This record gives sequence, C-alpha cells and structure tokens, in this order.
Amino acid sequence: MKVILDCDPGHDDAIAIILAASKISPLDIVGITTVSGNVEVEKNTLNALKICDIIGLDDVPVAQGATRPMVKKSEIAEEIHGETGLDGPNLPLTPKKAATSQHAIDFIIEQLHNSAEPITLVPTGPLTNIAMALVKDPSIKKNINEIVLMGGGTFGNWTPAAEFNIYVDAEAAKVVFESGILIRMFGLDVTHQVLATKETVGHLREINNPVSEFVAELLVFFMQAYKDHFDFPGGPIHDACTVAHLLDPTIFEFEHVHVAIETKGEHTYGMTAVDRLGVTGREPNTYFATGLDQGKFWRLFKKAMESYSD
Amino acid sequence: MKVILDCDPGHDDAIAIILAASKISPLDIVGITTVSGNVEVEKNTLNALKICDIIGLDDVPVAQGATRPMVKKSEIAEEIHGETGLDGPNLPLTPKKAATSQHAIDFIIEQLHNSAEPITLVPTGPLTNIAMALVKDPSIKKNINEIVLMGGGTFGNWTPAAEFNIYVDAEAAKVVFESGILIRMFGLDVTHQVLATKETVGHLREINNPVSEFVAELLVFFMQAYKDHFDFPGGPIHDACTVAHLLDPTIFEFEHVHVAIETKGEHTYGMTAVDRLGVTGREPNTYFATGLDQGKFWRLFKKAMESYSD
Amino acid sequence: MKVILDCDPGHDDAIAIILAASKISPLDIVGITTVSGNVEVEKNTLNALKICDIIGLDDVPVAQGATRPMVKKSEIAEEIHGETGLDGPNLPLTPKKAATSQHAIDFIIEQLHNSAEPITLVPTGPLTNIAMALVKDPSIKKNINEIVLMGGGTFGNWTPAAEFNIYVDAEAAKVVFESGILIRMFGLDVTHQVLATKETVGHLREINNPVSEFVAELLVFFMQAYKDHFDFPGGPIHDACTVAHLLDPTIFEFEHVHVAIETKGEHTYGMTAVDRLGVTGREPNTYFATGLDQGKFWRLFKKAMESYSD
Amino acid sequence: MKVILDCDPGHDDAIAIILAASKISPLDIVGITTVSGNVEVEKNTLNALKICDIIGLDDVPVAQGATRPMVKKSEIAEEIHGETGLDGPNLPLTPKKAATSQHAIDFIIEQLHNSAEPITLVPTGPLTNIAMALVKDPSIKKNINEIVLMGGGTFGNWTPAAEFNIYVDAEAAKVVFESGILIRMFGLDVTHQVLATKETVGHLREINNPVSEFVAELLVFFMQAYKDHFDFPGGPIHDACTVAHLLDPTIFEFEHVHVAIETKGEHTYGMTAVDRLGVTGREPNTYFATGLDQGKFWRLFKKAMESYSD
Ligand SMILES: [Ca+2]
Ligand SMILES: [Ca+2]
Ligand SMILES: [Ca+2]
Ligand SMILES: [Ca+2]
Repeated sequence: MKVILDCDPGHDDAIAIILAASKISPLDIVGITTVSGNVEVEKNTLNALKICDIIGLDDVPVAQGATRPMVKKSEIAEEIHGETGLDGPNLPLTPKKAATSQHAIDFIIEQLHNSAEPITLVPTGPLTNIAMALVKDPSIKKNINEIVLMGGGTFGNWTPAAEFNIYVDAEAAKVVFESGILIRMFGLDVTHQVLATKETVGHLREINNPVSEFVAELLVFFMQAYKDHFDFPGGPIHDACTVAHLLDPTIFEFEHVHVAIETKGEHTYGMTAVDRLGVTGREPNTYFATGLDQGKFWRLFKKAMESYSD
Repeated sequence: MKVILDCDPGHDDAIAIILAASKISPLDIVGITTVSGNVEVEKNTLNALKICDIIGLDDVPVAQGATRPMVKKSEIAEEIHGETGLDGPNLPLTPKKAATSQHAIDFIIEQLHNSAEPITLVPTGPLTNIAMALVKDPSIKKNINEIVLMGGGTFGNWTPAAEFNIYVDAEAAKVVFESGILIRMFGLDVTHQVLATKETVGHLREINNPVSEFVAELLVFFMQAYKDHFDFPGGPIHDACTVAHLLDPTIFEFEHVHVAIETKGEHTYGMTAVDRLGVTGREPNTYFATGLDQGKFWRLFKKAMESYSD
Repeated sequence: MKVILDCDPGHDDAIAIILAASKISPLDIVGITTVSGNVEVEKNTLNALKICDIIGLDDVPVAQGATRPMVKKSEIAEEIHGETGLDGPNLPLTPKKAATSQHAIDFIIEQLHNSAEPITLVPTGPLTNIAMALVKDPSIKKNINEIVLMGGGTFGNWTPAAEFNIYVDAEAAKVVFESGILIRMFGLDVTHQVLATKETVGHLREINNPVSEFVAELLVFFMQAYKDHFDFPGGPIHDACTVAHLLDPTIFEFEHVHVAIETKGEHTYGMTAVDRLGVTGREPNTYFATGLDQGKFWRLFKKAMESYSD
Repeated sequence: MKVILDCDPGHDDAIAIILAASKISPLDIVGITTVSGNVEVEKNTLNALKICDIIGLDDVPVAQGATRPMVKKSEIAEEIHGETGLDGPNLPLTPKKAATSQHAIDFIIEQLHNSAEPITLVPTGPLTNIAMALVKDPSIKKNINEIVLMGGGTFGNWTPAAEFNIYVDAEAAKVVFESGILIRMFGLDVTHQVLATKETVGHLREINNPVSEFVAELLVFFMQAYKDHFDFPGGPIHDACTVAHLLDPTIFEFEHVHVAIETKGEHTYGMTAVDRLGVTGREPNTYFATGLDQGKFWRLFKKAMESYSD
C-alpha cells in the first residue's frame, strides 16, 4: 500500500515514520511531506531528514510544505516538543540528503496523478498541505485511497474544545473533512489511551539497536513534557496510531460518524464536532477511532522496533 | 438551607423536587419556578403543581417563568419526556393549588431581596429565568449563595457539542456563568454515571408508598425513552444530582475550573467549554462534577423515597 | 396616539422628548423609561427627570430600566455626551419628582396590558428594556402599535459596521427585529442628514424661551462633540427623527425592507444588515428611513420650540 | 509597470483587460490568470483567451487558476454575466492559443520570483489565486508592488453586507488584507459611480473599430442585466476602475483606512469592514477609493478605445 506521510516531526510523528519504515511494514512510503505545526516547517523538515538518516530511509523523498496555516496566524507548540521540535535524543548535526526542491503541495499532487494505484495519505500534523493540494487540484481526490489522520477528538488539548493539529489550521481541516474523501480519524479519545511509560522505555532499551535507543530517548523527553505540561502518567504517542492501524487494521475500533469542523466559535475554534449519538442527521464522513486492543498494539510496536536489529 | 428550584419538569426534575421535599431533606424550599424547556412552560407549571399534590408540598409557591429563551427561538424535547413533559405515571387531572400570579423572574428577585440569609438557586432546566432576573436586577447577586445547576458537559446530547439545557438558551447560560456567582455544575459527564435501571424500579416497588410508586412509573417511561432515543442502558436522572449534592455534599467529586459558554459557533452553539487542563489561563468560575460515590448516592436516594412512607 | 419614550438621555434623546411634549404634539406620553446606554442608567434617569422639570412634564411617570445589556458587557459613550450624559446646559441640581419604583420592563408591560388602545414604543437608546419586556411577556406584542426607533444603519459609528444603540445590545435588537412587530427604523443613513448647525442655534436663541435656550445649549455642546470626535459639520439629532415622524408622517421617506441583526460576527457585531436590494429573499420587517424633506423637518422643529413660548 | 491581471471575465473584467492592453497603456502585462468566480474557471479561461484573440494580445500567457474557494463552497453569478460568463457579443468559437499548463498559483509565484522589478497584482475576481500563492510561498510578498483590486465596499450586492468577489472567498480576502502588502481597493462605493449608459454605447459605436464594437456589445448585455437584477440606470464597470487608476493615478480619490474581512458573521460573511471614521484604532492597510473625476475617467476610456483603431 502506497502512503505519503505528511507530518511535523515531532516525537510522535517520528515514531509514526519509524513504524512505517520498519521491516515488518508492508507500506510503500512514496514520500514524506512536512508542514508548519509543532515548530516552524524548516525545523520539521530538518527533523524529517535526520530521522531518515537514523533509520536508513535514504530513497524516500522529503518535500517541505506550508510555512503557515491557510487563513489564520501560526501557532507553535514548543512546550511539548522543545525548541528543535525533536528535543531529547542526539541528532545528526546535518542530514545526509536534502529536501526536494518541489513544494509538498505539488509533490502530493504529482504523486497522486502519477500513481497507477490509489495512495493513502497519512497526515499527523496540521492539515494545511492536504487542504491546499485539494483546493489547488481537486482532481486528485479520485486517486486518494483514504486519509488516515491524527487530529481532533471529542475534547481538546490546546483549548478546552480543540486538539492542536486541528486548532492550528481549522480551515484546512474543514476542507479535508468536507472533501468527500474517506477519513479515518485518530483523535485524543483514542490516542490518550496509547501511553508510553517507563516500562516502554525499558523494553526499548532491552531491544538495544540504534533505532530502539533513539525512540527510547524520544520517549524520555516526551513523557516528561506530558508530565510537566498536562500531568499525564505517560506519553501519548498520538501520531503512531495512524501507521499502527495501517500495519494491522484489527488493532483499533471505529465508529462511522459525521464529524464537522468548527471555524466560527468564540471558545471552540478548531473543535471536531463528532456526532456519536447521530443527532445531527448528517451522513457519516469519518471512521472515528474509539478504542484499541492494547496487547496487539504494543506487540506490534515491539516487533517493529526489533525489526531494526536485523 | 433555603433553595429555589427552577425547573422544567420533566421526569428527572420531578425526582429532584421529590428528593428536596423528602423528610430526610434539610432544605427549605422557598419556591418552585418553572421555565420553558423540555416542553412549553405552561405544561411544566402544571407538572410542577401536580408533583406538589402527589408529595403534599402544599405550602410551597409555584411561580411560572419564561415562555421562551432570551434571544433565540424555542426548542422542545418531547422525544424524551413525552407530550405532557411528564408522560408515564397517572397524574391528577387538575392540581389543587394554582401558580402564583407573580412571574418567576420577579419571584426570584423578591425572595432574594427579602431573605435574611442567602438562597441557593437550583436550576434544572434552561437558565432563562435566572439570567433574566440577573439582568433585570443585578443587585440580587449578593444574596445568592450558590447556583447548583444541571447543564452542559464536555460533550453533548442535543448536538455533538451541546447539552439540551444549555443549548436551549446559551445566551442565558453565558449571563449566568459570567456573573461571578459561584457555580456548581452537574453536566453530562457526571449525570450519565447516575443511571436508574430495572433494579432501581424494583427497589422503588418494594418501598411501596405512593411517592416511590410515582417515581417508579416515571423511571419506567424515562428509561424506555433513553433506550429508544440514545440506546442507553438506563435512565440518567440528571437533575436529581443537584439536590442529592445538597443533601449530602460528600457524594460527588468536583474540579474547580473555568467554564465558558459558546454562543457563536456554527456546530458548537451551547457548548460548555470546560477547561479541565487549565490551558486557557482563565480563573476558575465553576465547580465541575466529575464523579460520584455510587453507593452513597443510591443509599441516599432510597432513604429519601422511604421517608415518604412515614 | 399613546407613546412610551424609552431612552438614554442623551442630548438628542432630550430633544426627542421636548418635541413629543411640545404644544404642537398630539402625542399622549404614557411614560418615559430609561436604559443603560450613553451613560449609566441612573444618570440617564436623573437626566430624564430634570428634562421633565425644565419642560414642565410633571405628570408623566419616569421608570428606570436595565442597568446592563441582555448578554454582553456594558459599553458607555461618554465621549459624545459628556460625563453626566447631558453635558452642556445648566441643569437643576435635584429633580422635583422621583422615578417610579416600578422597573421600566414592568412599566412597559403593565401599560400595554392596561391600555384600551395600542401604544407606540419609541426607543432611542439600546433596546434592552423592550427586548426584556418581550421575553418576559410576549403577550404584550398584540397591543404594540409600532416600534419607532433610532438605531443601526447601513454603516456604523461605533465600529465600522455598527451604530452605538444596536452595538450596545445586539441581542436585544435581534429580539426586537425578529418579534414580528412593525418596526420603523431611523438609522444613521437618515439621521446623518439631520444636522443641527450654528444657524439652528441662532434660530433657537431668537425664539428665546427657556426651552429653546436649553436646546440651544444642548446643541452647542453636542455639535462640538461631533466636530471633535467625528469631524462632522453639525450635530446629527438622531433621536429627534423618531418623534418628528410621529408629529408629521410626511417628513421622512421609507423603504420596506428586511433587516437582520448580526450577533456573531468578528468585525460586525451589532450591524443591521439592511436588505435594500432584496437579495436575501426575506420578507420585509422594517420601514427603513432613507431621506427627508429638510424644510418640513426644520419648520416642524421651529414650531415645536416656539410652542414653549406660550 | 509590470502587472498580472487576475480575473474571472466577466464583462467588466474584459473591459479591464482591454484598457490594460490598449495602445495608450504603459502597462506591461506579464500574464492573465483566471479564477473561479462569475462562472466556472474553465469558462473564465476560455473567455480570457477569446478576449486576447479579439484584441490581439497574442504574446501574453493565460494561466488557469483555482476552481473553487479556499474553504467554502463555490458560488456562481450567472444572473449577471450569463451562462458563458461573457454573454452578449459574438465570440470566436475556439481561441487561437491555449492556456499555459502551469497553474495560476505557480505562474504568479514564478513571475514574482523571476522579475527584476516588483509586479503589481490586479485581481478583479475572488482572491483565491492571490491568497493561495501567498500561503504557498509567503516570500513572494517582497516583490509585489501593490495589490490593486476590485472588491468589497461599505455595502453589499450579493448580500446586504457583502460584495460578490469578497463573498465568494472571504477567507482568501482575509489572507490578502492581512498580508501587510499595500492594498488599493475599488469597492462598490466607487464602482457604482462608474456607470456605462446608452450614451457610452453610442460613443463606442461611433469609434467603430472591432474592439469598441465588442465593448459596445458587452455593455448592452451588462446594462440590461443590471437593469433587470438591480434596477440600475447603467452598468457599473467595476473591474475597469483598477486598470483606469493604473493608467492615470489622478482619476480616483482615496482614503487610507483599515479594512477587516468578516469571515464569522451570520448575516455579514464576506463584508469588508472599512474603518472610515478611524474608530477601531487599527493601522490603515488599504487605500480605499471613494470617488472619481468622471470627466477624466470617461476621456481615458474613450482614448483607450480609440487607440484600437490604429
Ligand atoms: Ca504531529
Ligand atoms: Ca430538567
Ligand atoms: Ca439615545
Ligand atoms: Ca470580475
């Protein structure tokens, strides 16, 4: 299955990439595109390139995308991911390869036009690139298999009502959720159930290959940030849920519901209004992840990390 | 403790009144005021009067209030409470007493001005009466002890984002939550944990007094409505939480948080944005009920029903 | 014709009252009600009482109304009307009569219920009292002849989109304009055409009675405020248009149009969206004043002032 | 002066192009870009190409742009411009040249990067292309001389508050007006003063060259549409004002004001809130055209049309 990983790495984005590129993954990563989100897009691009170096993803192009949201002003989440966007582990000072000169928006459009088979888009940052591509060239819709995204939820983390990725560019989210494309949504309801803990770090240390060690260091920083900022007992590796689902579609449970994006509210901008009770009478447009089989998830996670030992 | 019960009975409002008037209750019910909500205010008033008859609350005045929300058009919830607003049990055809000729808004204002001690307001319907009283005469604030209300939540039941009471008159809710008065809020997060079931009905049948029998019949209808409409395994007796808390303040757990009311949103009108993570930086204005001791609640409930046997 | 003058005097409110009470006026002033607006309601009430003293309006009750808008926070316009709300002329230190103890909302409701003939409401301040009365007792609608108001326009003076009276309480305006009652609206489009100038003051000085002298002093202050604040060549005596129309319905021209009140906008809160082109397809709810016969207006104005010489 | 004409032709867009390409024009037309607006973008592109044929603009590239607004659904104005978007004159069946394969967004970005001198953008349709270019590559700002646009006004034509171009894509307009680029805005306030009449058509017939004849036929259709739809005494050639100003900067008068774009309002979406009174305290971002020298304008118009006789 062909995928484009559209991200703002970001600790949990990094883990998503690592799962997707692991030897147990059947995914064909067509490219990694970056977007302004956790930190400025230039930092996110640099992080993506460095992650490629660490896991040996030499042949996958990285295309840099939007430096700002579609309509509103930028928002940055340095509180959670640190100044570099990927604080914690030692990273290579300079990445081996460079990003493509092509803009992520055009990369996405071109890949979708040139691919014989439909491509699955996997956005784990704000949806600016995807929405801009859809507005620039709506004809790409027909070759998008599905959009499997991290974002939103029935509650928020950036405001009481909104999750960060959607809040940063709610207009982009509106474009995506109203596009008619099949959406699979991993929101906070489910990602807060996927908590990396000290035990997770322990397991990674045992695996003891450079990638598992890198992930361990990512998690140590990330767990502390969630402890300090939200008083969480672990680090919710939000973005990794998307790829885990693609590796094993039996891990997560979903409800087929309508999701609307709030762009007008005074206290609710960027909220995903998830109609779980079916009270709006609107046709479902989203498979909304509600729960998971923890055992399956963490076994998959472990196997993926171990696969880097080979 | 003096209380005014401001309600739209309503099955769960009825139970709130019954708890407040039970022989185990120390509450001094200054009056019952009615508001347009579940059904039209005239029906709610009639229901309130009939409930008084059934439980012998002869000396408590009932004052009819607002027939419509402050700003928007009316909304009615006949799906849940039936055409009379209190479908299920056999009710007296005509109540013994009549409502006062005084408007609920003025009743509330006058009682607050005339009382030597502060009064606790207990709204279990839309907040129109309370807000109208506050706008008409802001000086009443100083004699309001607390507003203990049923409404809102971090999720909705009338829309994906909004609970019925707040949705019906979000502008009124905005006035109340921004008033500076201490708010104690029983939203869906907690009221959905307080489910009457067939067992509850069984216990009531055993108690076997006219009031417990009346409540049993209320619950049979109400549980079926929640089953049909929301596929719920029981009937959440939302409004009763407010009075139960006043009878025993150790039943429920609270978080002290800021709650903002959304009046502008396209998909989120009437949402209570509950800042549980403290991300808005706003001063808490609300004690938000998060959980309860089920045993304590149902023992209190049983004792109150049994007290009507004496 | 019976009228209730609902106002926040205010220089131009004062002139409206003076026209209505003049010997050429056929109006039967049932009462004057005051509202928070240009300045706090207590000051507006005091001003109304003092105006009554100056023009000998001893038998007309003055009822004080809302101290704040229905939903949002208060707004004050001291820049235009000075600290007292009626800066300029020497006013009596203490008014002879006191305001009624009845709240303006209840005064309006009671008068409408007790009057054998329909009453015309003439609001020249924010619409809080009228809207609150309509929400408290919608049955009053049937005895309201017409609401002849100053407010709104196709452009603003308090924000680029909103006129002061509507901006102060747009929710109240929404209630009034959506009430189904016949609305006659004097907005900025027409009131900016009714400019008092030095010549006007000269004519008043010539008339030389205590009331014309009082009005002259009002205008001197008011014209200067408009010069300083808006660089206007004269003082638009906005509120006086309403009463002038009632004294001579042939002065002003109207279009029958739909007017909607904006309560959600980020930059347009309190705008009156006047559908002069008929593009919304909504039924007209308002007679919107577009122009006037200047000669007729100023002759009427002069005659009214002269009538105080008798 | 280098210009890019970004348009949705459209009768008045056509006249703008014709002015810009006339022999009296010093403008260097770098390209014509099209956008979804009056009709679908494909029709607008075809119209642009045919206009090039009629006026011999063989060397100017035409690049097709956005097929939809950035965030909301499309809106079409066939009532005004007819089914083809340019109903009236006989048009060539097939244009001689084809549009470039490059998307208008990329054409704009590339030209701005490659030009040694700053380019003036002249949008006379919805602002989607310009905003998309700014979001895709904010670095282009530094080589934009000015954005001279037709859109908005202190009143509306598509809704009571909003003009068509801004209403169609208010989010794009927000991006443009908040960009910090110098904006020169020709809104309805001024364009409704520029009315083509039967006399204008008479003058064009006298000039009697193929282009003046073409414009005459455009105007006959356009004037009738404005008569039928808005009961206007002439055809406001809105878009032509932008180019006329560039040909002679002394024709129009401007105020330097702040303009904000309403994207949230219930009745005011797409309004340009023009702060002519300076009440918002915001720094001016726009030169807002308020009036014109009619003689100068129509003499320029005539000379431009005559220049096609040579
Ligand atoms: Ca991310
Ligand atoms: Ca209730
Ligand atoms: Ca006034
Ligand atoms: Ca155009």
